Amino acid sequence: MLQLTRGDGRPLGDQIVENFSSMISLGNLAEGTRLPSIRQLAQRLGVSVHTVVTAYDRLISKGLIESRAGRGCYVCRRQLCGDFPQIEVVIPNAATALGFAQSSLDTDHPLFPASSGFLPSDWFADALSPAAGARLVKPEAEAMQPAPVQGTAILRDLLADDLRRKGIPAQAGNLLVTYGATHAIDLIIRAGLAFGDSVLVEDPGYFVLRSQLERAGIRLVAIPRKVDGPDIEAVEEMARLHRPRAFFMQTLLQNPTGGNVSPANCHKLLSLAERHNFLIVEDDVYGDLAGPHLLRLAQIDELQRVLYVSSFTKVLNPGMRVGYIAAPAALVPQLVEQKMLSVLSGSTLQEMLVADTLESGRYRKHVEQIRLRLARVRAQANRILPEFGIRLAENPQEGIFLWGRIPQGVDTDQLVSDAQHNGILLAKGAMFSPTGGSRDFIRLNAAYCTDRIFTDYLKTRFPLEAGAR
Amino acid sequence: MLQLTRGDGRPLGDQIVENFSSMISLGNLAEGTRLPSIRQLAQRLGVSVHTVVTAYDRLISKGLIESRAGRGCYVCRRQLCGDFPQIEVVIPNAATALGFAQSSLDTDHPLFPASSGFLPSDWFADALSPAAGARLVKPEAEAMQPAPVQGTAILRDLLADDLRRKGIPAQAGNLLVTYGATHAIDLIIRAGLAFGDSVLVEDPGYFVLRSQLERAGIRLVAIPRKVDGPDIEAVEEMARLHRPRAFFMQTLLQNPTGGNVSPANCHKLLSLAERHNFLIVEDDVYGDLAGPHLLRLAQIDELQRVLYVSSFTKVLNPGMRVGYIAAPAALVPQLVEQKMLSVLSGSTLQEMLVADTLESGRYRKHVEQIRLRLARVRAQANRILPEFGIRLAENPQEGIFLWGRIPQGVDTDQLVSDAQHNGILLAKGAMFSPTGGSRDFIRLNAAYCTDRIFTDYLKTRFPLEAGAR
Repeated sequence: MLQLTRGDGRPLGDQIVENFSSMISLGNLAEGTRLPSIRQLAQRLGVSVHTVVTAYDRLISKGLIESRAGRGCYVCRRQLCGDFPQIEVVIPNAATALGFAQSSLDTDHPLFPASSGFLPSDWFADALSPAAGARLVKPEAEAMQPAPVQGTAILRDLLADDLRRKGIPAQAGNLLVTYGATHAIDLIIRAGLAFGDSVLVEDPGYFVLRSQLERAGIRLVAIPRKVDGPDIEAVEEMARLHRPRAFFMQTLLQNPTGGNVSPANCHKLLSLAERHNFLIVEDDVYGDLAGPHLLRLAQIDELQRVLYVSSFTKVLNPGMRVGYIAAPAALVPQLVEQKMLSVLSGSTLQEMLVADTLESGRYRKHVEQIRLRLARVRAQANRILPEFGIRLAENPQEGIFLWGRIPQGVDTDQLVSDAQHNGILLAKGAMFSPTGGSRDFIRLNAAYCTDRIFTDYLKTRFPLEAGAR
Repeated sequence: MLQLTRGDGRPLGDQIVENFSSMISLGNLAEGTRLPSIRQLAQRLGVSVHTVVTAYDRLISKGLIESRAGRGCYVCRRQLCGDFPQIEVVIPNAATALGFAQSSLDTDHPLFPASSGFLPSDWFADALSPAAGARLVKPEAEAMQPAPVQGTAILRDLLADDLRRKGIPAQAGNLLVTYGATHAIDLIIRAGLAFGDSVLVEDPGYFVLRSQLERAGIRLVAIPRKVDGPDIEAVEEMARLHRPRAFFMQTLLQNPTGGNVSPANCHKLLSLAERHNFLIVEDDVYGDLAGPHLLRLAQIDELQRVLYVSSFTKVLNPGMRVGYIAAPAALVPQLVEQKMLSVLSGSTLQEMLVADTLESGRYRKHVEQIRLRLARVRAQANRILPEFGIRLAENPQEGIFLWGRIPQGVDTDQLVSDAQHNGILLAKGAMFSPTGGSRDFIRLNAAYCTDRIFTDYLKTRFPLEAGAR
């Protein structure tokens, strides 16, 4: 009754599972029917006993058949649950901050990620070692043990080494490992801010951060982000007026503008932080994509007043979520406590895999490759996008993002919604602005925005501008 | 100058790295010194070129040497950061709820885990497939892509299948994947409860849950946990008096008592939840260790009023943190939003590895093995512990925990602190009680509490009781 197709590449075990599954769900194999014995079936189909054992195991785990001790396998009784109306999948609205973020993560219903914050998965070849992957899930491997709340010691040591190479005097004791930078920010908010507190944020700046602060009842004070960093006069004035508890900002390759804070402005910011007694949360998730020898705030502050946040999600790959906070030692216990209240602890498996990548030197080589690839696609984008009337900010040379001004007369809200209907994910400028500014900007991902899928869409959307050149 | 030892099992590459590291840090190799070329060193030491390349890569990643294009490797300049006073490691106090949890996770400063909530790492042999570990970190693997916020589709489908086999009518749309059960509870608190709300909790019950609720400003109302479940009369009275928003509880193998809720009490609880309009958060992290055919609340409620929480941390291994919520469909969007605000998304790598374990049938077999092993060590503990005057609750037959009454006259606070000084982690009963009850109980882990390390300690601590038998 069961036929296998050979030579079309489908594993024989998969075919056995699929055949039985469809026979059972179509009712062609009644409840309680005894399946052929493993040896019988293997012989009849000309496959190994191991293939049949594995296939039967999978059918058991799907709940379709059950094994009765010593008597073989039988088709299960129908599941006891009644039928319930199918729950509909809600497609998030990419024009809202959280809707956009959800869409950009939704690999089950993918839009073309023209504005995504993640690099393509094929850029991450060779970042991780398959041998390490196998070693870490072996019996009695260290990865089978819980992770200490603060993070696995070997990883914290490696992170501290890496930060010291960047000139940031971190020790393992300054470090708290998190599930990415968003988690780091959440823990900082929970540990350090109370309902009604004020904080400074950049305009434009990262939108999920803003949602996190707003939902915690924090008052946001917008600081314009200029080509060489936050507007220092605005910081001074707003610090005086609003007595903020902290400034959440990005020093290098800022999201979305791609700019860096100049060394002079780094110094001024820290002086203001000291004078007006606020902390600085320095989010450096893109920092490794910037050239070496660029100044970070944590470097001149030496972890006194700066909480430095970073992550491997952007550079190593988005399917692993490992980030960290390097904080003044006195603040670490509160952050550790908040981590326990939020997730109890980290994933040893993920932490050991990142440690392996750092320790073996794979990470360093991988970052160099990513930077070369980004330089190539950025050069392309700088050539192609202006043909569609999209003018790019001149300053940024590096990183994932392009911050483009769209042609006059185009309504960004309409553009984003039209793009979503055409299967393309776009991030409108206003999403990045706490004041509703940056209305004629979009943020683009350099790795995707020169792809034909996107340029063909632009051709249909901006026909005049494209034709005019 | 560099000598390798052969035959003592230390990999030659490790020896090269260690030799150079110590020469550099002791100043025997000055800054700027050129290292031997790769080929030279390989020849001189009689090792492969690959071994030297890998060792040099590791020294580069440690920041000890640097590669100058075409000219070889050189000892780096000293790190630029000044020396800072060493940050001291604070050993958490195991007598507090969060201190105990932190200690039980602290594999860097391990205490003998007599009371831990985790099983030994060697119990997890064969739970995960090394082949899957290797496959998932390969170039262009699906695990290199971000995880959808709600969780990878393949995992949610498998979880829904598993729940339906347990009689809980879940669909993939009911499910939200989290970083373990603690994270699930945190998201539920954030999505559903406000400062000042009241909830019901069990007495005794899980202590990290209590810390999570208290820090969120939630008022706790204690419900005594009896042998067959929560005290129904107390639930009725407290529901009337305090109008709780939810009841957080465990139906099967309750932590710490090990007991199950009887079917009749399941029914009564749901009726009360309906009459007094509160939700039930059913934490089932130990459920797979209980016998089949036991009743869960979600089964008779059919995900109308019950949020079902579970996790793979206890059974698959504590180094992976994957848990989930099965919630009424109407509540899922709020939980998804809170997950984004808390961690942005999950780890594709972890989720695919759990999916592989479920799909291949490994999980089911692994659970059976764990249950057999637990039965064996429980039988031992039931025989041995009474010899030291520790009386065990009679009802529970399964699961990780033993709930033991210690001999009269022994002060539990002193016992826990004395044990910690002797390198043994004990969980005192009062830690589990929101009312400060259960003072003469301790919770023990069946896998550890018959180990000589612990029984030898008990002998010195309870000499009279031990001698009296």
